[in-house]
Amino acid sequence: GVLGSGDFARSLAVRLVCSGFRVVVGSRNPKRKASLFPAAAEVTFQAEAAKKADVIFVAIFREHYSTLCDLADVLAGKILVDVSNNTEINHHKESNAEYLASLFPACTVVKGFNVVSAWTLQSGARDGNKQVLICSNNQEAKRTVAEIAQVMGFTPVDMGCMSAACEIENIPLRLLPAWKIPIFLALGLFLCFFTYNLIRQVIHPYIREQKNKLYKIPIEVVNTTLPCVSYVMLSLVYLPGVLAACSQLYYGTKYRRFPDWLDQWLQHRKQIGLLSFLCAALHAVYSLCLPMRRSHRYLLIETAVKQAVEKKMTIWVEEEVWRMEIYISVGIIALGLLSLLAITSLPSIANSLNWREFSFIQ
Amino acid sequence: GVLGSGDFARSLAVRLVCSGFRVVVGSRNPKRKASLFPAAAEVTFQAEAAKKADVIFVAIFREHYSTLCDLADVLAGKILVDVSNNTEINHHKESNAEYLASLFPACTVVKGFNVVSAWTLQSGARDGNKQVLICSNNQEAKRTVAEIAQVMGFTPVDMGCMSAACEIENIPLRLLPAWKIPIFLALGLFLCFFTYNLIRQVIHPYIREQKNKLYKIPIEVVNTTLPCVSYVMLSLVYLPGVLAACSQLYYGTKYRRFPDWLDQWLQHRKQIGLLSFLCAALHAVYSLCLPMRRSHRYLLIETAVKQAVEKKMTIWVEEEVWRMEIYISVGIIALGLLSLLAITSLPSIANSLNWREFSFIQ
Amino acid sequence: GVLGSGDFARSLAVRLVCSGFRVVVGSRNPKRKASLFPAAAEVTFQAEAAKKADVIFVAIFREHYSTLCDLADVLAGKILVDVSNNTEINHHKESNAEYLASLFPACTVVKGFNVVSAWTLQSGARDGNKQVLICSNNQEAKRTVAEIAQVMGFTPVDMGCMSAACEIENIPLRLLPAWKIPIFLALGLFLCFFTYNLIRQVIHPYIREQKNKLYKIPIEVVNTTLPCVSYVMLSLVYLPGVLAACSQLYYGTKYRRFPDWLDQWLQHRKQIGLLSFLCAALHAVYSLCLPMRRSHRYLLIETAVKQAVEKKMTIWVEEEVWRMEIYISVGIIALGLLSLLAITSLPSIANSLNWREFSFIQ
Repeated sequence: GVLGSGDFARSLAVRLVCSGFRVVVGSRNPKRKASLFPAAAEVTFQAEAAKKADVIFVAIFREHYSTLCDLADVLAGKILVDVSNNTEINHHKESNAEYLASLFPACTVVKGFNVVSAWTLQSGARDGNKQVLICSNNQEAKRTVAEIAQVMGFTPVDMGCMSAACEIENIPLRLLPAWKIPIFLALGLFLCFFTYNLIRQVIHPYIREQKNKLYKIPIEVVNTTLPCVSYVMLSLVYLPGVLAACSQLYYGTKYRRFPDWLDQWLQHRKQIGLLSFLCAALHAVYSLCLPMRRSHRYLLIETAVKQAVEKKMTIWVEEEVWRMEIYISVGIIALGLLSLLAITSLPSIANSLNWREFSFIQ
Repeated sequence: GVLGSGDFARSLAVRLVCSGFRVVVGSRNPKRKASLFPAAAEVTFQAEAAKKADVIFVAIFREHYSTLCDLADVLAGKILVDVSNNTEINHHKESNAEYLASLFPACTVVKGFNVVSAWTLQSGARDGNKQVLICSNNQEAKRTVAEIAQVMGFTPVDMGCMSAACEIENIPLRLLPAWKIPIFLALGLFLCFFTYNLIRQVIHPYIREQKNKLYKIPIEVVNTTLPCVSYVMLSLVYLPGVLAACSQLYYGTKYRRFPDWLDQWLQHRKQIGLLSFLCAALHAVYSLCLPMRRSHRYLLIETAVKQAVEKKMTIWVEEEVWRMEIYISVGIIALGLLSLLAITSLPSIANSLNWREFSFIQ
Repeated sequence: GVLGSGDFARSLAVRLVCSGFRVVVGSRNPKRKASLFPAAAEVTFQAEAAKKADVIFVAIFREHYSTLCDLADVLAGKILVDVSNNTEINHHKESNAEYLASLFPACTVVKGFNVVSAWTLQSGARDGNKQVLICSNNQEAKRTVAEIAQVMGFTPVDMGCMSAACEIENIPLRLLPAWKIPIFLALGLFLCFFTYNLIRQVIHPYIREQKNKLYKIPIEVVNTTLPCVSYVMLSLVYLPGVLAACSQLYYGTKYRRFPDWLDQWLQHRKQIGLLSFLCAALHAVYSLCLPMRRSHRYLLIETAVKQAVEKKMTIWVEEEVWRMEIYISVGIIALGLLSLLAITSLPSIANSLNWREFSFIQ
C-alpha cells in the first residue's frame, strides 16, 4: 500500500507494479488522482487502502502525519514505511520516523527509501548509489522491507535500530560536507601563490626590462604555482598529527579530548591529502606538456641559430644537466608514492586492509 | 550431501572436504565413480546419500531432475541447493530452482553457488568475484547455506526470495552486455574519422605535392582521430537527457514511459561516457609522446639549420605561441574533470555518495 | 558492560558512552581506576558489573580469562564479547574466543571488535577500514552485537559460526602477506637489470672511449631497466598457468593437487601482475620526461649547430623515424591494456563482474 499522491508516491507505485507487487494507493480524492497512477495499481480511499495492504508506504509530508490518526485502528499491527526527508539538517528534534512511531504505537515503523530519488525509483537503479538504508526496532519488519527493496532492484543496507533514523534522514541533504573547507583552502593557497608567481615571472620582467612574457600565464605560471600548493597541503596533512602528539605530551594523557579545531583538522586530513595529490598530478601533466609548446620550439631554434652564427660548438653545462635529471627522477618517485596513498583511500581497497597495513602505507 | 558426479559435483566435494565438512556423495554407480572423489568423502548410492545428509547439493542437469523423484520421500524436509546454470539466457519459462521446488514440494529449495566456476571451487576463491548469490523463500535454510558458503571462503549475498532465481541463473551467461553497443559505436566512429584524417593528412599531400608522409599514420593520424571520437561520444552522453526533457515537455507529463530506443540510450550513458574518457586519455598520452619522436627531432634540426644558413635570427610567431598555450591548458583542465567523472563511476565511490552529490559531480 | 581497565577497555567505554549506551565497567580496583574512564560510565567491581550488564565486553588478556571463573554464575545466560588479539599468528591451538566459550559454557560468546584499534574506537571510524568482523554460533547474540557495532559507527560483517574466530584473530597480525615475495622478486630483478644496463650504458663507454656519461644514471639507465623488469614479471604471471596445464596433461587428471610451489605461484599472480603494471607505468612516465631534460636540449642544439656549420641540410633517416613511431604507438596500446587489467583488479570492480567476464578481460 502507498498513502499519498505526490511525485514520490507515484514513482513508488510505478516501480512496485513493475517489480510484480500488487499495489493499492490510498488518496483523499481517489477519482481525480487515479489517472496519475499506473493502471495496474488500485487507487482508492485511504482507509480502504490501509485495510487491504500489509506493508504501507507513508509518502506524505511530516506535517500531515497527524491527519492519518483517524486510520489508527485500521493500521494497527501493520508495517509502516516512513520514506520522508527533511528540508534542513536536524530540522526537528526527533526524526520523522520516530515521530510517526509515536503517533501509531500499535504499528511497526520502518525507515527506508528516503535516500532514493523519485527519478531513480521510476527508471530503476541504473547508476550511482543503489543502496537503500533501512532501520527499525523490529527485525522481522526490517527483513520484509529489505526483501521488497531487493526485488525492486536496490541493495538494502541494515542500519540497525530506530535511533539511526535521524542520521538516515540527514544523508540526502549532505553535499560533500567534508570537502568544503579543504577545497576553499586549496583555492586560497592557489590564488596567493599564483599572484606571487605572476609578479615574479611576468610583471617584474616587464617593468624592469620591458619584456612581454604574458604568454607564460596559462602554463608556466600555473605550473610553478601547483607544486607550492601541493607541498603546503601535504604538510597540512602531517602537521595536526604532530600537534596532537604534543598536546598529549603536554597534558600527560591520551584520554583527554583534543580541542575542537584540532579535531576538525584531524578529520579533514584525507581530503587535504587527496587535493595535494591532485595538485601534484596536475603539476606532472603540465610539466610533461612543456616541450609540446610552440614557445619551447621557437626558443630552441633561436638558441641553435645564435650558436651556429657565432660558431660556438658546445653549450653543455654539466651542473644544469645533473640538476634537471635529479629533479625529474625524484619527482617521479614522489608522485608514485602519492599515487599509492591515493589508491588506498578508495573505499574498496581500504576495506581489504587491516589497521596495521593501513598505517604502514600511510 | 552432493548428488551427481560431474565436474562441479567433484569440485564441490573437494572444497567441502577442505573446509572441514563431512561429505557424502550420491551417485548412480558409486563403485566406478568413487576414485574421482577425495578419499575423505563417502561415495554411495543416491538414496543412501540423501538419507544421511541434511543439506543436499543437487549437482545434476535440469533435464535429469525428474530422475530424482524416486527419492522424494527420503528428501522430504531437507534443504536442496540448486547449483545449476542454463546454456541460454531465459532458456526455460521458470527457473531451474523453481522447477526443482515444484518437483519436491516437501523440500526447502535454495538457489546458490551457480555463479561460481568449478575451478574456483577447487582452488578456493582467490581473485575475481568471491560473491555467492543466494535466494530462497525460507529464511532459515538461506542462512544455513550462507554459513556454509562463508566457511568455504566465499561471500554470501542474500538476493531475497525465490523469484530472484531466474536472474541469478542468467548472471553467469552475461558477457558485458551493457558494453557491446557503446564499443561498436566507438569503433565505428574511430574508423570514419580515421579514414577522413588519413585522406586529409597523408593521401592528399601525396597526390597534390608527391610528399611521402606515410610515417604520420601510427601516431599523428590516430592522435587527430581520438579527440573527434571523444567529443562525439561525450555529446552522445548528454543528448539523450535533452531529448528526454523535450519528450516530457511535448507530452506534458513525466509519467509517460520514454520510447524504447531513448530508454536504451539513457541506460548506456555511463558506458559511452567511460569510452569517451578512454579516448580523451589516450589522446593526452599520444600528444605527450609527440616530442619523443625522431621525426619531431629531425624537423626541429632542419628548421634550425635552414634558419642559420639564411641568417634569419627570429622565428617567434606570437599568435601561434598563444594558441598552443591555451589549447594545452584547456585540454589539461578538461581531462582533469573527465577523470573526476570516471572516478565517481567506480562502484565503491558511487556507493559513498548520495544522489545530490552524484548529480552535482555529473 | 566492560570487564578490564586497559587501553582498549577505556577506548571502548568512551565510544559506547558517546554512542548513547549506558556503560558499566568492571575492575578489580574500581576506586583507583575510576578516574581513567569517562564520567558517564559507572566503574565498579567485576561481579557488580557482570550482574548489571546484558552484553559484556571481555577486554582482558587470554592469560587472565581463568580469573573470571568466579563470576561464572553471574555471567550465565549473558552475551560475552571476546575482543582479544594474539601476538603471533596461530599462537594457541584454539582461538581465544573458543577458549573463553569452553570456560563459560553457560554464556553465549561472540567474537568481534578485535580488528579495530583502540585509537579508532576513541576517535570514531573516520578513514581506513570501518568493518567489524563478527562470528558466533548464536544468531541472536550475533545480531545484538552487530547492532551495537552499527550504532558505534562501524560496519558489522557476519563471518559465520565460531570456527571463523581463529581467522578473525589472525587478521590484525597480517602485514600484506601476499605482497612480500612479489616485491622482493621485483627488487631482485630490478637490481640485476640495473647493473647490466649501468655497465652497458655508462661504464663500458667510459672505459673504451673515456666518455663521461654518468648523468644517464638517474633517468636513462632506470628507464631501460623498468621495461625489462615489467616484461619478466608479466611472463611470470602467465607461465604458472601453462605449467599447471602441463602438469594436468602429464598426470592425466584435473583432480590431483598441484605441487606446493606451483600452488603458491598461482596464488601470487595478481600481485606479480600489478607490480608488472607499476613498472610499465613508471617506464611510460620516465619516457615522457626524456624531452624535458637539459641533456636532451643540449644534444639537440649541438647537432643543429654542427649541421649548420657543415651546411648539411637534411638529416632525415626514414628507418629511424618509422622505428620510433611504431615503438611508441605499440607501447601506448600495451599500457592501455595493462591499465584495463589493473582496474579490474579493484575489489569493487571485480565484484561486479561474473567469471566469464573476468576471464575474458584477463
